[in-house]
Amino acid sequence: MNKLTIGLFGFGTVGAGLYTVLQKSKTVDAQIKRICIKNPDKRRNIDAKYFTSNAEDILGDPEINLVVELIDNAAAAYDIVKTALQRGKSVVSGNKAMLAEHMTEMIALQQKHNVALLYDASACGSIPVIRNLEEYYDNDLLTSVTGILNGSSNYILSKIFNEGETYSNALKQAQELGFAESNPSFDVDGYDSLYKLVILTLHAFGVIIPPSEVFNFGISNLAECDIRYAREKGRKIKLVARVGKTEDNNITLYVMPRMLTPDLYIYSVEDEYNGVVIRGQFYDKQFMFGKGAGGLPTGSAVLSDITARFHDYRYEYKKFCTPNPPKYVTDNLVTVYLRYRNVSDFEHFRFVEISEKYTSSEFCYVVGKISINNLLSIKSLLPTLDVFLATMCS
Amino acid sequence: MNKLTIGLFGFGTVGAGLYTVLQKSKTVDAQIKRICIKNPDKRRNIDAKYFTSNAEDILGDPEINLVVELIDNAAAAYDIVKTALQRGKSVVSGNKAMLAEHMTEMIALQQKHNVALLYDASACGSIPVIRNLEEYYDNDLLTSVTGILNGSSNYILSKIFNEGETYSNALKQAQELGFAESNPSFDVDGYDSLYKLVILTLHAFGVIIPPSEVFNFGISNLAECDIRYAREKGRKIKLVARVGKTEDNNITLYVMPRMLTPDLYIYSVEDEYNGVVIRGQFYDKQFMFGKGAGGLPTGSAVLSDITARFHDYRYEYKKFCTPNPPKYVTDNLVTVYLRYRNVSDFEHFRFVEISEKYTSSEFCYVVGKISINNLLSIKSLLPTLDVFLATMCS
Repeated sequence: MNKLTIGLFGFGTVGAGLYTVLQKSKTVDAQIKRICIKNPDKRRNIDAKYFTSNAEDILGDPEINLVVELIDNAAAAYDIVKTALQRGKSVVSGNKAMLAEHMTEMIALQQKHNVALLYDASACGSIPVIRNLEEYYDNDLLTSVTGILNGSSNYILSKIFNEGETYSNALKQAQELGFAESNPSFDVDGYDSLYKLVILTLHAFGVIIPPSEVFNFGISNLAECDIRYAREKGRKIKLVARVGKTEDNNITLYVMPRMLTPDLYIYSVEDEYNGVVIRGQFYDKQFMFGKGAGGLPTGSAVLSDITARFHDYRYEYKKFCTPNPPKYVTDNLVTVYLRYRNVSDFEHFRFVEISEKYTSSEFCYVVGKISINNLLSIKSLLPTLDVFLATMCS
Repeated sequence: MNKLTIGLFGFGTVGAGLYTVLQKSKTVDAQIKRICIKNPDKRRNIDAKYFTSNAEDILGDPEINLVVELIDNAAAAYDIVKTALQRGKSVVSGNKAMLAEHMTEMIALQQKHNVALLYDASACGSIPVIRNLEEYYDNDLLTSVTGILNGSSNYILSKIFNEGETYSNALKQAQELGFAESNPSFDVDGYDSLYKLVILTLHAFGVIIPPSEVFNFGISNLAECDIRYAREKGRKIKLVARVGKTEDNNITLYVMPRMLTPDLYIYSVEDEYNGVVIRGQFYDKQFMFGKGAGGLPTGSAVLSDITARFHDYRYEYKKFCTPNPPKYVTDNLVTVYLRYRNVSDFEHFRFVEISEKYTSSEFCYVVGKISINNLLSIKSLLPTLDVFLATMCS
């Protein structure tokens, strides 16, 4: 157990949260030596001597033995993390986009340079989901992981559903509270959830899936009529990510809004909280719940990664290293609610079965079964259509 | 990573559950070689060649490198686990009573003989609470752990509160379903929760407290009038164990029924489920929830301990090894509901402050503040009194 000398990249909500948390915690012999930031002229409330805008001041400092990367920009994060690992420095990262896009390379770099890359804080803020999937649910009994993985879209949906707030007001509030990323589309269009889901899928089932091959649809098209529909059926809409085994022991995954009934655990996950339901063959379901956004909760998740490094912990990628990992399949069906206004929009969707159909001059909807393949094939088209999509299954 | 050859002690609900779970899981190279049971004549549905009633057939077999101890009897479990550790065999144990009573010795034995003793399955069935307290919440930000730790008393309370079942019928059902230990007092009088709480306290705060020094009170005195009181106030009664930091950074703990309001997470933990709320300085609260009783869920928790051994995992008792662990104090006050029928019973309780008082010919109650010290001083007397006690705090 060596003293950790930390070089920190980024001093936004989470970076500043980590700084506060580290000052309060006396257990770990870890100190931030330098902080690399983009804009050196911005006023900050800690001593200016810590700050630099030259990455090399951290990456080239032999005394710094742990790099903590908490910046927004995925491309810059990739360069930082890669260089740090290549120079024999272990890394704690919170950048889900970068991790999800470069996971194969990141695993190889860790092995080649005998260093560790930890990123429990990258998914579900303060809930230790990755660590538990890797360590505790490390056998093949796991059947699915379903969760609300994005605190800011969940905060927005809570404000809309519980307080009758408008979408744009709710988004503004989430940003003011530091829950939303600088680019709101990242949160509300389901990309943040998608990247996290890709990371969870690796630790749950040992499979790396390129994010671009996974279907994601967010909440930015949510309209008054969709909210009304959900309310009439006694449901709430939440943005849900899911990976699960299929009947033939392969896996399938997607991110979509879901019409939730009150009997489900994640129905009660409100505001910036995240909640994950882990199902397995013999233990039925387990539920983990906690704050998924905000500087201090996420900062304390980063602290847990730091203390884990203090005890020499690293992910072993146990399931990734097993001989026959499951395959990723997309030919399975999901039951969805599709709201549309123009028949021309509807015609892109190839429903296999329709159980409900409603038409009016204001809006129309169908409830029916559609394949993930079909949804994937029109993914790039969806932002141009006036439709809202939500899964109906429980 | 060596092949695990397991010697199993006990083939009750959990032992048989583990056998089923191990047969289904293909990830781990682990096989049960022998099973030691008390009664060799009992009919069992697996091959008789596995069974022995001679412990030495397991403890003396050099091929067996992991002993899994799943018996009820704490004294016998102590002998088995101690001998196994002394002979260099690692152990997975589910015996909370034995563990709580002998923790100091068990830690020393592990160190002396360089072996591991894992027991995540001993607390909260399928929920990985110990592992998370040890690994993820391994810093000093943790402030309290509060939970429903006993599946069978919770099952009984759910039947009583939700289905109007009588206490004795509900207990009978819990036993038939294999949720209750062979001695029901273990569950319903809070001893099971107490032992689990002592184990959680070690991993949460690094302190070993003898179970006899902790106040526990169960549900066996619960009367119709107590249920009515809770219902009138919109509350439910659950058996709750709690360890938390005091204002001066010491810790206090107890097991008592609690009058819960619907806004609390554990209010919704029903039947044989367990739920634990972990609070910390910066992440507010986290909730973990899952099945806390039953052969298969607990069997899969034992499997997680077994696979952890496969990867050479051991508890490091990180917080136990820190220089200044918090002190256990009992001079703090709790707000309780005390129901009694005879003034002579009431007179044993030294309330510091009384905020409500109700008397009638049928029963009386007070709500007020009392010190844990006072409760501890009359602990041995309580089983002889016609009183019911529940904490009121949230």
